[in-house]
Amino acid sequence: MSTYKVTFLPDNKTVTVEAGTTLLKAAENADVYINSLCGGEGLCGECRLQIISGNAKADKIAIGFFSSNEIKDGFVLACQTKVNDNLEVMVPARSRIEMEKIITEGVQVPAPSGTSPEIGINYSEPTHVNLHKLPRDPALVDHPLVMKVFLELTEPTLTDNISDIDRVIRELRRKLTQQDYEITLDCLRHLADTLRNNNWQVTAIVAKHNGLGRVLEIEGGDTTDRHYGIAVDVGTTTVVVQLVDITTGKVLGVEGNHNLQARYGEDVISRMVFACGRGSLDALHQAVITNINSLTKVLAKEAGIELHEINCMVVAGNTVMSHFLLGLPPCSIRLEPYVPTAMVYPQILAAEIGIQISPDAIVEVLPSVSSYVGGDIVAGVLACGLADRPEISCLIDVGTNGEIVVGNHEWMVCCSASAGPAFEGGGMKWGMRATKGAIEKVVIADGKVEYNTIANAKPRGICGSGLIDIIYELRRNAIIGPDGRFDLSLKERRLFTDAEGPQYILAFPEETETGQAITITETDIANLIKSKGAVFAAIKSLMDYIGLKFEQLQAIYLAGGFGSSLRIEKAIAIGLLPDVDKSRIHFIGNSSVIGARMSLLSTAVFQKSIGISRKMTNIELSAYPPFMNEFIAALFLPHTDKKLFPNVKL
Amino acid sequence: MSTYKVTFLPDNKTVTVEAGTTLLKAAENADVYINSLCGGEGLCGECRLQIISGNAKADKIAIGFFSSNEIKDGFVLACQTKVNDNLEVMVPARSRIEMEKIITEGVQVPAPSGTSPEIGINYSEPTHVNLHKLPRDPALVDHPLVMKVFLELTEPTLTDNISDIDRVIRELRRKLTQQDYEITLDCLRHLADTLRNNNWQVTAIVAKHNGLGRVLEIEGGDTTDRHYGIAVDVGTTTVVVQLVDITTGKVLGVEGNHNLQARYGEDVISRMVFACGRGSLDALHQAVITNINSLTKVLAKEAGIELHEINCMVVAGNTVMSHFLLGLPPCSIRLEPYVPTAMVYPQILAAEIGIQISPDAIVEVLPSVSSYVGGDIVAGVLACGLADRPEISCLIDVGTNGEIVVGNHEWMVCCSASAGPAFEGGGMKWGMRATKGAIEKVVIADGKVEYNTIANAKPRGICGSGLIDIIYELRRNAIIGPDGRFDLSLKERRLFTDAEGPQYILAFPEETETGQAITITETDIANLIKSKGAVFAAIKSLMDYIGLKFEQLQAIYLAGGFGSSLRIEKAIAIGLLPDVDKSRIHFIGNSSVIGARMSLLSTAVFQKSIGISRKMTNIELSAYPPFMNEFIAALFLPHTDKKLFPNVKL
Repeated sequence: MSTYKVTFLPDNKTVTVEAGTTLLKAAENADVYINSLCGGEGLCGECRLQIISGNAKADKIAIGFFSSNEIKDGFVLACQTKVNDNLEVMVPARSRIEMEKIITEGVQVPAPSGTSPEIGINYSEPTHVNLHKLPRDPALVDHPLVMKVFLELTEPTLTDNISDIDRVIRELRRKLTQQDYEITLDCLRHLADTLRNNNWQVTAIVAKHNGLGRVLEIEGGDTTDRHYGIAVDVGTTTVVVQLVDITTGKVLGVEGNHNLQARYGEDVISRMVFACGRGSLDALHQAVITNINSLTKVLAKEAGIELHEINCMVVAGNTVMSHFLLGLPPCSIRLEPYVPTAMVYPQILAAEIGIQISPDAIVEVLPSVSSYVGGDIVAGVLACGLADRPEISCLIDVGTNGEIVVGNHEWMVCCSASAGPAFEGGGMKWGMRATKGAIEKVVIADGKVEYNTIANAKPRGICGSGLIDIIYELRRNAIIGPDGRFDLSLKERRLFTDAEGPQYILAFPEETETGQAITITETDIANLIKSKGAVFAAIKSLMDYIGLKFEQLQAIYLAGGFGSSLRIEKAIAIGLLPDVDKSRIHFIGNSSVIGARMSLLSTAVFQKSIGISRKMTNIELSAYPPFMNEFIAALFLPHTDKKLFPNVKL
Repeated sequence: MSTYKVTFLPDNKTVTVEAGTTLLKAAENADVYINSLCGGEGLCGECRLQIISGNAKADKIAIGFFSSNEIKDGFVLACQTKVNDNLEVMVPARSRIEMEKIITEGVQVPAPSGTSPEIGINYSEPTHVNLHKLPRDPALVDHPLVMKVFLELTEPTLTDNISDIDRVIRELRRKLTQQDYEITLDCLRHLADTLRNNNWQVTAIVAKHNGLGRVLEIEGGDTTDRHYGIAVDVGTTTVVVQLVDITTGKVLGVEGNHNLQARYGEDVISRMVFACGRGSLDALHQAVITNINSLTKVLAKEAGIELHEINCMVVAGNTVMSHFLLGLPPCSIRLEPYVPTAMVYPQILAAEIGIQISPDAIVEVLPSVSSYVGGDIVAGVLACGLADRPEISCLIDVGTNGEIVVGNHEWMVCCSASAGPAFEGGGMKWGMRATKGAIEKVVIADGKVEYNTIANAKPRGICGSGLIDIIYELRRNAIIGPDGRFDLSLKERRLFTDAEGPQYILAFPEETETGQAITITETDIANLIKSKGAVFAAIKSLMDYIGLKFEQLQAIYLAGGFGSSLRIEKAIAIGLLPDVDKSRIHFIGNSSVIGARMSLLSTAVFQKSIGISRKMTNIELSAYPPFMNEFIAALFLPHTDKKLFPNVKL
């Protein structure tokens, strides 16, 4: 079989592939990350490339995505174009998955005081563990998931010649309240030598497993001062890892990157289709393992820690991400009646899934509530303390899905609504994620548009918070009506109509990185209204189901990607959030990773997470008829029922 | 590097090896099994080979083992001779480890009635489980270690969409008393497909683990009628595997072979030296795994069973064998204060140690009592029911070590004494194991010797029961005195003296396979007296320690290699066994494999084994001063204290 060389610009990465390989696959081999919303089905038009030299024909199916000029210029879809020549290919900015460090906006490391003023909430207050005051004596500790216990054993004699492991356990029983232990075969195999080579002074690494102490490893000498874990948030879009000193509870570093699964599909649905169809589950499993391993490596290096010193990992993710992480098939999650393989996951060892920390480290995945309310939401409940207090409050996590929890220490009800990718920039003509060059803030006044971009770069597109601003500003200036349609009677040079329908120019060609105007179309606005309508309808449905009014919510916690860049009053004004007193709304940032860290540091908190997941009542909105009426009623700015938004003056 | 061909006769097996390889290693590569007591150290002289063609020089160290004629005829030690030419080599009969099926004498399969008259003991009586009356309903079963439970699950609906594993566990809770379950990641990974491809009708394979139900596998459809396990006795000399139908309790087949570890050393001590010195633990670990896998393969084929249908394995072996099986280093067992890594072993999965049955099958190793009283003895206690009855009885297992247990349902005391390899034919001029051609029965009368050989073949040597007969007959005929020395004043053509000292001819050259006379030397007799003296002294020391007389023993159970071929009256007469009424002495055959099978079939019995191991008091004879006096007193036929043997008239 003949092979060809493909060079990807501007990275100038070259790869040799067999004839017939798609350009998308070739890019993957070259470690060039290209957007692909649909998982290589030729449906989303995201993976556009420009052929610079060599012959490559776009298949018929791809032609619809390009103007005749673009076709002339050699634009093709990477997933639909096969390599049958040596090629030079340009990856346009909008097709690139940026691999630079993601903006960990909202990923807050609590200050040593336990209070993180930037995100307006005291983390140590609503939880059972004070992250910064863990005592060193393991007998007294609010036990972290994995403990290190230094043991000074007496040497065996003829009158005290119990087995090595019995000697270790006898001493553990003296030091800890735990009485029963189990041990891995691997640990047993090294035990005799470790004891004798270290003068019977060793450190036992012990986890809790099914009510027993699980002896994971016996290390020579006293290693109790080097005891680390990682807390991981596996989001559909990004993966965030925190390196934590288990002894002090301190966060030693935090890193995030884009979920590499994006190459197989932008959202969970397309990834499930890929995993269960022509693609493979293993590719998605390996992708997220690579994400975590690469972040952990960087963090460990920065902190001067060896990977084998990391003895515990706690992961929070939605149900589909948790399944991918563990290599569980997600196929039945996608279809009615939406059944996952598991909601509470077994404790496993890092080596079982290829996580490159200590091979005997334990991995705990926070439990899910349902197919579409996952461990990330349970982590959010832990982080905001919703389940610890008698007042009724609400947790809202808006991403591709919007998940909502309402409740208190006695009861909790939750649901999930598909918001679509709009808030993350997906499906919009110029939408993009919150990375460099994204328009994130917009004010329109007197026909003038003022915008801020992330990192003050030339604009490349618009991210979620920018889009919400734009809708608000267009409506405030009466450029669109309450139904989201442009008032085409306006004399406004930014407003024009072409084949894609009416649209509004936010940045003229001369202002932008690509030299093309950045606009918002009427279709974009309709999509955004659908997204905000879905989220609001979900909240409203849940409140009606319980029989509560919005004003009865003592607090609303906002988790997820928006972070603190969201202007709350604008989010209320377009009808995304309920019209409550602004002071009751708190950003809690990446509460998924915070809840994971809290569980890492306290077995009690981890066990509480299982209780929370079992206690929460999940409302399946697709099977709850009132939701569709609420959704339709919410497809207005702010809402068809103005009484729901008494304070909004649009 | 140059290579040479070595052909081993009479098997005519040829192997190509690099220059400098020892003949012992070459034989191993050729799958020709050669005796090696010392583990290739050139110390035992067991691995003698004859060079037929080609040049091969024996190293100096080996010369002492051969007569000058033998050196002329090309005899060398395989372990001390390196290959530097193409060679043809003859393996003499006495150097061969016979790989034919071992005589599973004493490995009795209880008859359907539960009574096995050949071995004089009713197995079903002293134990808690009637092996032949296990009911089919798992809810009623005296739970075997691994259960199969058929589940007819309801299909999920929107109002009943719990996760797949929760659905399985909900049904298990209805069928079994067990309420809490854990599951392996591997099983979870296949769960969704198995349920949906089998119309929600599946069979769960469940083990007990730390008080929880451990879901090992979910199979499609109803497979409960195919549910198998293996019970394994890993002896120092032989490995025996029984294939058991777990549903009916029936033994479907039994096979044994020689422990392949013999190539690294004949006894446990030399194997420990090999494992902890220049050799490797892994070689010994792999050897016994190969033993078990090859036997299991044969048994499964004969019974028409697939290997993956075998879901459980229970192993009984001495402490060193158990360590080798699990890959645990035995090094500290060998030296004072004789400390093993573990005495109770963790439940592991077959795949963890390369046992080729279902990879998710569990492996349980019966617990040890001390470094030299192992799971085989605990199995023996289970098999004879010693721990179930108020009467005091005694279990004696004679092999290279003699292990003795005395006790009843309330207490047990045990010890182990090194008997040396004499009873298994080791260290004797013409000693051999109980295989084809071994003289196993001898009567001497009026200067005539009558003998029987195993399989009625031409004599090749003498096995344990033959040696006991010979000592007895020589003493009865006053050819030796009570000190074991020949009466050289006798005119007896069978009695002569050469460089090896006085010896007695049992078979003349014309009668034997090798054409050489088979004799017993005074040194052989002295070794045997030491062996029997060690065993008797151990029994006597234990009785004195407890303060009991022999007549207080209601029963003596004889386990181990001797089997029913031992003439009890002769064993008493030479002072090996105490002088009690013959009717109280019972052969229980390979009680190691029987106890393993009983545990396989009943979780209660397996748990009892752990209780037994913890309850038994081990007396370390090397640290018990009276033992040495008892040993010296026992170096007489039958004993220096004739009052101990009132019924012996020698």
